[in-house]
Amino acid sequence: PKSYNITLLPGDGIGPEVVSVAKQVLNLTASLEGIEFKYQEMPVGGAALDLTGVPLPEETLSVAKQSDAILLGAIGGYKWDANEKHLKPETGLLQLREGLGVFANLRPATVLPQLIDSSTLKREVAQGVDLMVVRELTGGIYFGKPRGFGKNENGDEIGFNTEVYATYEIDRIARVAFETARKRRGKLCSVDKANVLEASMLWRKRVTMMASEYPDVELTHMYVDNAAMQLIRDPKQFDTIVTNNIFGDILSDEASMLTGSIGMLPSASIGDSGPGLYEPIHGSAPDIAGQDKANPLATVLSVAVLLKYGLQEEVAAKRIENAVLETLDKGFRTGDLFSTGMKLVGCKEMGEQVLKSI
Amino acid sequence: PKSYNITLLPGDGIGPEVVSVAKQVLNLTASLEGIEFKYQEMPVGGAALDLTGVPLPEETLSVAKQSDAILLGAIGGYKWDANEKHLKPETGLLQLREGLGVFANLRPATVLPQLIDSSTLKREVAQGVDLMVVRELTGGIYFGKPRGFGKNENGDEIGFNTEVYATYEIDRIARVAFETARKRRGKLCSVDKANVLEASMLWRKRVTMMASEYPDVELTHMYVDNAAMQLIRDPKQFDTIVTNNIFGDILSDEASMLTGSIGMLPSASIGDSGPGLYEPIHGSAPDIAGQDKANPLATVLSVAVLLKYGLQEEVAAKRIENAVLETLDKGFRTGDLFSTGMKLVGCKEMGEQVLKSI
Ligand SMILES: CC(C)[C@H](C(=O)O)[C@@H](O)C(=O)O
Ligand SMILES: CC(C)[C@H](C(=O)O)[C@@H](O)C(=O)O
Repeated sequence: PKSYNITLLPGDGIGPEVVSVAKQVLNLTASLEGIEFKYQEMPVGGAALDLTGVPLPEETLSVAKQSDAILLGAIGGYKWDANEKHLKPETGLLQLREGLGVFANLRPATVLPQLIDSSTLKREVAQGVDLMVVRELTGGIYFGKPRGFGKNENGDEIGFNTEVYATYEIDRIARVAFETARKRRGKLCSVDKANVLEASMLWRKRVTMMASEYPDVELTHMYVDNAAMQLIRDPKQFDTIVTNNIFGDILSDEASMLTGSIGMLPSASIGDSGPGLYEPIHGSAPDIAGQDKANPLATVLSVAVLLKYGLQEEVAAKRIENAVLETLDKGFRTGDLFSTGMKLVGCKEMGEQVLKSI
Repeated sequence: PKSYNITLLPGDGIGPEVVSVAKQVLNLTASLEGIEFKYQEMPVGGAALDLTGVPLPEETLSVAKQSDAILLGAIGGYKWDANEKHLKPETGLLQLREGLGVFANLRPATVLPQLIDSSTLKREVAQGVDLMVVRELTGGIYFGKPRGFGKNENGDEIGFNTEVYATYEIDRIARVAFETARKRRGKLCSVDKANVLEASMLWRKRVTMMASEYPDVELTHMYVDNAAMQLIRDPKQFDTIVTNNIFGDILSDEASMLTGSIGMLPSASIGDSGPGLYEPIHGSAPDIAGQDKANPLATVLSVAVLLKYGLQEEVAAKRIENAVLETLDKGFRTGDLFSTGMKLVGCKEMGEQVLKSI
């Protein structure tokens, strides 16, 4: 049988609960599809800090690099919020992204018909929303140097960061975005702040240059403030959005909340070579951690994306996607998506229902 | 009679149309309240570029500085979009803000009961939204140095900007925000990205330090990506939001679109001394410029804010606010807010209706 090495990084908060469900789903799928998965579970984030004193132990990175795909739960929690930068759980996540070279973060925002009423948008605005944010993930202000603390000429303390993009970074993310748009509805909107920022001016120039290679893709540009508005005014106007690291952080979260299904949304982070990193879009939700209340479906769907795009196991992926939809159709809902008439279940029970449908 | 000098900066696109209405409103109010206004109309943005070759002529800035308050229409348009940085209309606006030292930009997002159906949010989510974004306006990545273009160590072209805040800049905007929150519902949410950016870590530290001076204000912190989500999930949780220049640009536009009343929202930019800059939140809308379609009410309400906060003419301000509400109550709507059963009017006619109600 085909055999794959999967690195599991449960992380913090609800991470372990949702990853545990996802692993069961992977196992059942494997046995039905005649695939074999070997797992290595490694610490990252706050969990790694508590265990080893650093948020990304070297061994975690090297195991992850050597595997075929990586499944991450979530990272962060109140406990470590006051830590210095190099001892923050989030720093572990950034080091992981950088270490794996996963420069492209694909974040879909899709309104599922079953969940449309969970959106705070009017039904007619939310209906049919199906967009993909392609976020640059290993550059920009997240990683730019110089950064740190210092003094200005008056002796005042300052904190500073550098937003910087090189042409090769823009070109490679733009290529992923054009390819993504081509496989979708052929529309790409590049979001920047080119009326103010030099880093954005270069971004716009390079994205525009690449457009000639993709005559079948319709490229538009939008300023980030306008994009934040347009996502609310008429989200259906968007197909694929490409943007830098920080704007992508903000806009992909905004877009996911529009759908009302943030507990349902997977994401994939990929590089030029090496394994991809798959994780739910939601965070570690420390307030409900360990209470069997988390929605495991975003992580289960992340497994489907992992199978489809990471391992080219499309049949197995489809099996999981269908099982999730069937479970929703049967009316099972975790607390985040519950409404009258539905069946309220916890994280484990939701997992069992998905297993039944598989 | 009391006499004030007002600088009018119509700017580009729909700017001249809406400023012209606002001026009529000012004049009528003046005659009824026994106040006198003297106007100087000066070019800025694209209009100034066409006339003088620069987006902020020295004379415009010096006239503005010597006046009692400044009313701006809007800035920018397709025509100048490809211009180099120092010849962009937007650069004129940034120079104006910097030259006037207006470091605090106050942007309300209020859902008017008359217009609640214009929001794309469900009625029960939109109803009662009443928040204020206090945006830092003369610092951060908009103005930080170094900035520009260059090469990296591999000879690749780069574009870069610096996000930087000094303690004095954070302290003065935090103070405006605490004072604003105190006059509102006593809740202040500071938005940053302190889990990643050093500039945000310093921001969070200084805002937290000031909290002890405002025991009556409840201070919370939120990451910007979460704020972008929470604004959609439950905008009523917010009272006053304080944030940096770029996050404020994005979040205030997002918040204003939630209300469905973007054509209705004024803004004020103020400094420690000197005149304030008052302008509608919306842009120059080049697609409808010169067609008598623009909604002048955001500019009319900006005049009310100018009177109230800039000149302490509260009675005159109230007169204008009431006239706007009465005009809406009578069912008059410009195209942006039109719905069946309402009376569709153009920019001028809307102005005349407001004058009638005054
Ligand atoms: C936890 C944080 C560092 C991270 C980010 O900002 O990238 C998160 O918000 C995300 O979007 O994955
Ligand atoms: C036109 C542009 C430079 C400006 C900004 O980004 O500040 C505008 O978007 C605004 O919010 O006033």
